[in-house]
Amino acid sequence: MTTALEGPVLVIGCGLIGTSAALALAESGVEVHLEDIRTSNLELAVSRGAGTADPVASPSLVIVAVPPAEVVDTVRRVLKDWPAAAVTDVASVKSDLQQQIGQLAGSERYVGSHPMAGSERSGPMAASSRLFEGRPWAVTTAPDTNQEAIDLVVRLAEVVGGVPLVMDAPDHDRAVALVSHVPHILSVLTAAQLNGAPGEHLALAGPGLRDVTRIAGSDIALWQDILGANAGQVRAVLQHVREDLDRVIDSIGADTDRLGRVLQSGQDGTRLIPGKHGDKIADLATVFVSVPDRPGEIPRLMAHVGESGVNIEDIRIDHELGRPVGQVEIAVLATSADTLVETLTARGWSAYR
Amino acid sequence: MTTALEGPVLVIGCGLIGTSAALALAESGVEVHLEDIRTSNLELAVSRGAGTADPVASPSLVIVAVPPAEVVDTVRRVLKDWPAAAVTDVASVKSDLQQQIGQLAGSERYVGSHPMAGSERSGPMAASSRLFEGRPWAVTTAPDTNQEAIDLVVRLAEVVGGVPLVMDAPDHDRAVALVSHVPHILSVLTAAQLNGAPGEHLALAGPGLRDVTRIAGSDIALWQDILGANAGQVRAVLQHVREDLDRVIDSIGADTDRLGRVLQSGQDGTRLIPGKHGDKIADLATVFVSVPDRPGEIPRLMAHVGESGVNIEDIRIDHELGRPVGQVEIAVLATSADTLVETLTARGWSAYR
Repeated sequence: MTTALEGPVLVIGCGLIGTSAALALAESGVEVHLEDIRTSNLELAVSRGAGTADPVASPSLVIVAVPPAEVVDTVRRVLKDWPAAAVTDVASVKSDLQQQIGQLAGSERYVGSHPMAGSERSGPMAASSRLFEGRPWAVTTAPDTNQEAIDLVVRLAEVVGGVPLVMDAPDHDRAVALVSHVPHILSVLTAAQLNGAPGEHLALAGPGLRDVTRIAGSDIALWQDILGANAGQVRAVLQHVREDLDRVIDSIGADTDRLGRVLQSGQDGTRLIPGKHGDKIADLATVFVSVPDRPGEIPRLMAHVGESGVNIEDIRIDHELGRPVGQVEIAVLATSADTLVETLTARGWSAYR
Repeated sequence: MTTALEGPVLVIGCGLIGTSAALALAESGVEVHLEDIRTSNLELAVSRGAGTADPVASPSLVIVAVPPAEVVDTVRRVLKDWPAAAVTDVASVKSDLQQQIGQLAGSERYVGSHPMAGSERSGPMAASSRLFEGRPWAVTTAPDTNQEAIDLVVRLAEVVGGVPLVMDAPDHDRAVALVSHVPHILSVLTAAQLNGAPGEHLALAGPGLRDVTRIAGSDIALWQDILGANAGQVRAVLQHVREDLDRVIDSIGADTDRLGRVLQSGQDGTRLIPGKHGDKIADLATVFVSVPDRPGEIPRLMAHVGESGVNIEDIRIDHELGRPVGQVEIAVLATSADTLVETLTARGWSAYR
């Protein structure tokens, strides 16, 4: 880990993100003070050990974890009330905020944060000190941002277990348009085409469709807000998508080479994504296992997979059509695939690669 | 299972699909004959027990598992040589084939097949009698198709463990455009936008981007063929996608309600997909587990997950950025989530829901 963060830290807003950050800071020994206009949230966060509701005299850092619409007003108050404190917020789009806050006195002490973590749940009861563990935490800046304030927010990200990535606010918004907002829209557009299709057509769906459309089921109001706040950057990427889409519509069935170039640019794009994709993907093999659709079969399989000692890169579980047999796909290094198949077959599973 | 299939069956083409079907039929006691112009493939399939290379006198069913471009010529020969046999092929697009074959004498004995199964590998050595287990198997027909031939191909799908879905050929092609071909293109378009983005932008990628772009890494030549063969149906769906995309571009940042309607149609679409999505999704909760990036940790976790006895709906494993800690997301029934968290925590894992 890293050197401890020197407190006290004030967390304003005891929802999922604020309380999780407070819990993680408190666990690492930082003095944490909490504020929330919703008394019930504040009491819950205090009762979970996230910090104290006592007023703070002079915080070194204030984390503004309120809803996006309230960020600017809250930051204005904080910059005024604590002239020595660094201030950060946790909203998921940063340029507009940076611009508005940039006009306030003391704005050089403001650093944006966007922890890339979440949960289907919200509120202080869903909070966890582990929420940020291993997750990217964007730290956004303007040209005149105070370096000490930046260092403090980077340390915050590290102390709670996140991976800080410092960039300026417009860069951040361009990045999340590319890696999050536009993928969300294309997932939505894929799923939207399914409306009105007969059930027997949809019965042909495989794991690919499920992968592409998984995020399209997310909360609509939340995404209206996110997309609205990053409209400029998202629209710019969508214009490129539209050009590529036209290229596909024109070339499909007419110009195989041109279609191939679009497919190639997609394949190239997947290799740029850090993690499982990219350079490693060629070394992976998939082991398929058929699993009777009975309670207890999947845990039994997982136990046997674990006992095999083979390291697992990914797992997908598909119970389709309410059929008697489900499919589990286990991605492993190609050099380990046969070992896994043999281990599972010896234990009675129907497995193949 | 079902009543056995009365043979003999002739399989022409001993690649992955042909040999897998032959192996599954042979295992269920059917007399299988094999043919392949590639002698090495034929010998391998025979050596694996998929059937005999001896000529067949009068097959009840012929499975034409040759490359798409050779299907029509092969079916023509089969319809002529064995005037009592039903004939099926395994190409992934059906209307054009149905139209061409429909002009041949005996075409009422031809039934299309599209087994929705595959592997990253090809050839007879990669074949498995389990390849079709639990997978949809589209059986495609024309108005004048012989009912006995249809019944025989349905039985074939059942005997090899698949789930037969009978539909006419244009319906099939519309269905795969919706559930497979268009999702593939939108996955490609999402990934294509990443080219040229700085690495620090891509470092913000989360599991959502990986889900949407997973299938964009697939074989390009294969997809050029598939999309070319189904150009009409795919283009029709893509025109709708384009209209929806324009709706998003126009409404984002300008008309929240209109944007919301597109997001809603996407959410509605996900609920139509059979399997894990849809009605069940509301009852699921995600348990997050942090896993040190060391060999042996994932299998150890899988063993503990198995021992918990909690039934798993889905698992996602993310090792991002070469970081010391990876994230495993385990989807379970909401009513079981706390049990899983407690079991894993008791065994020393950092888990939360």
